[in-house]
Amino acid sequence: MNEDLVVKLALQNWDREMTRFEKLLSEISDEDMLGEVSPGKNRGIYLLGHLIAASDSLRTLLGFGDKHYPDLEIPFIKTPDKSGQEMPSVKELKEIWKTNSTALNERLMQIPVSEWFTKHSSISEEDFAKEPHRNKLNVLFTRTIHQTYHAGQVALLVKK
Amino acid sequence: MNEDLVVKLALQNWDREMTRFEKLLSEISDEDMLGEVSPGKNRGIYLLGHLIAASDSLRTLLGFGDKHYPDLEIPFIKTPDKSGQEMPSVKELKEIWKTNSTALNERLMQIPVSEWFTKHSSISEEDFAKEPHRNKLNVLFTRTIHQTYHAGQVALLVKK
Repeated sequence: MNEDLVVKLALQNWDREMTRFEKLLSEISDEDMLGEVSPGKNRGIYLLGHLIAASDSLRTLLGFGDKHYPDLEIPFIKTPDKSGQEMPSVKELKEIWKTNSTALNERLMQIPVSEWFTKHSSISEEDFAKEPHRNKLNVLFTRTIHQTYHAGQVALLVKK
Repeated sequence: MNEDLVVKLALQNWDREMTRFEKLLSEISDEDMLGEVSPGKNRGIYLLGHLIAASDSLRTLLGFGDKHYPDLEIPFIKTPDKSGQEMPSVKELKEIWKTNSTALNERLMQIPVSEWFTKHSSISEEDFAKEPHRNKLNVLFTRTIHQTYHAGQVALLVKK
């Protein structure tokens, strides 16, 4: 019974952070998203693309199939900001954010409770036998934490 | 059996974020902690005090007894940064961070697994009956998320 609760709790925390970020995006103009979150640091556009690519990779980690936005991996994960990579516009990325987070959330809600306690795709059977807490649920928690880390940075672009 | 795993997972995520932040603090000089994380935004010293005060409040929420640093509540929780409140120095706050996080971690490790699924102190019996996922474990997750949100901001003070 507590397993149901824990999964609910994890999904609620994920959904709340994703919803908060979408609200945050609505408060920052497309132009302001081109600014650095602090002088010399990543730009808002880069962190937005980075967060879409990171959540997209949940699809392979959790066994949903292929990524939906593999083209975002090079400009937003494999290379740092301001390294001359081509990237979609802020407007396009904001639209992708919505489409991606809605589709992903629907898919996450379909995972049966017991499956959350099984291994994710990037850990071997052998390692999982030794460290069974490295399950799908843990992936969701660590991704929630990663999402929030960068959300705190993007929030600095809100003009008071 | 999965309950043990979930509690382990939650404690590991908390501890990892606290350890990361301590490493981050070691990379930022006391002088740089007096700077704003982005122009016009909170200073590093404020966020450090804010995070200590926030984790200190876990003591009352989880039923450990009184807060250890109640004096930090006014300058770092009740009032915004740069509102003229007296506060400890960065050096003192860095020391408090270590003392507090070590003591808190030891205490968290002593909580029996089953207790993590009981209500925390700021939810009524009635509400908890309706929403049993609002348990002590959830408090630990949401505080881990809060910790990380501001850690992402303080990280902007690291000089590359």
